[in-house]
Amino acid sequence: MTGLTIALDAMGGDFGPQVTVPASVQALLHFPSLKVVLVGDQSEITRQLVSLDQKNNPRISIVHAESSIANDTRPSQALRSSKGSSMRIALELVAEGKADACVSAGNTGALMALSRSLLKLLPGIDRPALISELPTMGNQQSWLLDLGANVSVDADTLFQFAVMGSVLAEEQLGYQPSVGLLNIGEEEIKGNDLVKRCAEMLQQCSAVNYIGYVEGDQLYTGKADVIVCDGFVGNVSLKTSEGVARLFLESLKMHVLANPFKKLVAKWLFGGLFNRLKHLNPDQYNGASLLGLRGIVVKSHGRADISAFQHAIGEAVHEVERQLPNKICDRLEAVLLERHY
Amino acid sequence: MTGLTIALDAMGGDFGPQVTVPASVQALLHFPSLKVVLVGDQSEITRQLVSLDQKNNPRISIVHAESSIANDTRPSQALRSSKGSSMRIALELVAEGKADACVSAGNTGALMALSRSLLKLLPGIDRPALISELPTMGNQQSWLLDLGANVSVDADTLFQFAVMGSVLAEEQLGYQPSVGLLNIGEEEIKGNDLVKRCAEMLQQCSAVNYIGYVEGDQLYTGKADVIVCDGFVGNVSLKTSEGVARLFLESLKMHVLANPFKKLVAKWLFGGLFNRLKHLNPDQYNGASLLGLRGIVVKSHGRADISAFQHAIGEAVHEVERQLPNKICDRLEAVLLERHY
Repeated sequence: MTGLTIALDAMGGDFGPQVTVPASVQALLHFPSLKVVLVGDQSEITRQLVSLDQKNNPRISIVHAESSIANDTRPSQALRSSKGSSMRIALELVAEGKADACVSAGNTGALMALSRSLLKLLPGIDRPALISELPTMGNQQSWLLDLGANVSVDADTLFQFAVMGSVLAEEQLGYQPSVGLLNIGEEEIKGNDLVKRCAEMLQQCSAVNYIGYVEGDQLYTGKADVIVCDGFVGNVSLKTSEGVARLFLESLKMHVLANPFKKLVAKWLFGGLFNRLKHLNPDQYNGASLLGLRGIVVKSHGRADISAFQHAIGEAVHEVERQLPNKICDRLEAVLLERHY
Repeated sequence: MTGLTIALDAMGGDFGPQVTVPASVQALLHFPSLKVVLVGDQSEITRQLVSLDQKNNPRISIVHAESSIANDTRPSQALRSSKGSSMRIALELVAEGKADACVSAGNTGALMALSRSLLKLLPGIDRPALISELPTMGNQQSWLLDLGANVSVDADTLFQFAVMGSVLAEEQLGYQPSVGLLNIGEEEIKGNDLVKRCAEMLQQCSAVNYIGYVEGDQLYTGKADVIVCDGFVGNVSLKTSEGVARLFLESLKMHVLANPFKKLVAKWLFGGLFNRLKHLNPDQYNGASLLGLRGIVVKSHGRADISAFQHAIGEAVHEVERQLPNKICDRLEAVLLERHY
C-alpha cells in the first residue's frame, strides 16, 4: 500500500480534539504510510497540535468545520441540518474520494444516517450494521454484529448481516469462519420468529458456514467466529459485557492496586493475567465498523481515551488495506446468485 | 410462619435427583419450618435419600412420577402430553393447595406454559415473567426481568412486568425501588417502539418510581433497583453476563489456583475478593421467580449444582413467607384503578 488517508471527525466523542488529535499523532507513528485529515474547529485542533509539537507535520492536514453534531441529535435532524459539521465533512471527504475512510466517536445514529446518505449502501444491502471484535477464552478472535445501528430488522437484513460479518472475519482469519445466530437457547424450537426465519435462510446458504444458535454465555467461548443479532440485542449484550468487565476490574483495583506492596506481589503472582484482564476491557477493542456501505466508516466509543481512539484508527487502516467493501460486494453477489439460481 | 411445604420437580435439570435430593436435605437444615415433597422416580429418589441417610426424615415425602419433561419439548406439547410428569405433578400440588410453592430446574418453556395453565394468571396480568436478583457494585441488590419467559411482548405487558418487579423488590428492600427500562441509550430518542411506548406509560404511573432508560453497562452499577426488558433481551443479557464472569474466573483459576503456593499468596492478597468474585457467579444467584401467577414457582438453572439448587429453594421459601402473589395482586389493582380513574 503506497499511502492512505483517513478523515477524522476531530470533534466527536466526549473529549473531542483532546483525544482525537493525540490519537492521530500516535497512529501516524504506527502506520508510516498513513495521512490524516483532522476535521473540526481549526483553532482547537491547532492548539492541540502545537502542544504536541506537530503543527508542521506534513502528514496532518486540517479541514475546518463550523459545528459538530450533538449526542442527542436525532438521525433525521442530522440528515436535514448537519451541513458544515465535522462528522458530515469527514464523510464527504470519503464520498468525494479525498479520504479512504472516516473515523468518528460522535453520535451513532447520526453517523449511520449520514454514512448511508453520503456514501450509499452496497447493492443487495438494506441496512448497514455495526460490527466489533470480541475477546474470547483461548485468545481466539470473534465478531459480533449488529451492535446498535438498527433497533429492529427483518430476517432478510439479519441474513445480510451474517454474510457481511462472515466476509470481514474471513479477511482477518484467513479461513471461512463459523457463523452463529444469537438466541435464547440452542434448540431449534427456541427464539423469536426473526431468528427462526433467518436460521432457515442461513441453513440453505452454502456461502456461509452457519453452525446454529449461540447463547449469550457462549459469546466469549469462541463457539462461533461471527455472532449475528439485531442492533438492540447486540448493543445491550456488548454493553452488559462492558459492565461486568468493569465490575471485575474495579473489584480487583479496590482490593489490590491501591496498596503499592500488594500491587507488587500481585504483579509477580499474575504475570500476564492483568494484561489479559485488560484485554477484556472494551476500550482495547474500540472501533466498530459500519458494514454495508460503499466506503469505510469506523465508529469509536464516545468515551474512548487516546489509546482506544488510536485502536479505532488502526481498524480503519486495516479495512482500507483489505478493501473490505469490495470484498463484501463480491460475496453478496455470489450469495444472491445462488439464492435466485 | 408455622410451616411451609415446597414441591420439587426432582427430575428436572441436567443432574436430576443427584442434585435436587441433596439440595433439599441442605435446605431442610437451613429452614426448620420447611417440608419438601420430592416429585419424580420413586426408586431413584429413594436411592439418593438412603445414601444420605435421610430415608426416614419425616419432613421429606415422595410423590412418584412416571415421566419427566425433556429439554426439547415444546410448550404446546408439554401442555398436551405431560400428564404424570414430575414437573406437572409438582405444579398440581401447588394448584391443589398441597404445597405452597414449586421449584424446578426443568424446561423453562414447559414450566411457564404448565404454570400458566395449572395455577392461572393473576387478574390484570397477560403473561408471567421470570425475574432474578443481580449482584452490583457496592453490594446493593438489583433485579432484572423478564429473563426469557416471553420472547416477544407488547408495551402493556412490559408495563405489567415493571409493576410486578417493583413489588418484589420493595418486599425485599423495604422501600419503593427505582425502576428503569433496559435500552440502547439513555436519551429519550433512543430505542425501539416497544420501550418508548412503555416509557410513556411508566412516566404516568405514580405507583412505580420510574427513573428512565438504563443501558447494558449500568445493569451492575445499581443505577436502578429493578430493570425491565423483554425476555429475549433479558435472557441474552443475563447469559452474556454469565459468560463474561466465567471468562474472568477461568482466567484467574488458570493463572493462580492451579499452583498451591500462588493460591496461598492469592488468598492473603485478596482477602474477601474471591468471595466477591464468586458472588458474581450466576450459580450464587440461582433461582428465577415466575411472577404473575396465582402461586409461587421458582425456576432453577438446568446445570445448577447442589448449593445453587438449594439457593433456588430458599428463594421459594422467602416468597411464600412474603405472600408475594397477594401483594402483586393488590398493587396491580391500585395501578389499574389509577389508570382507569
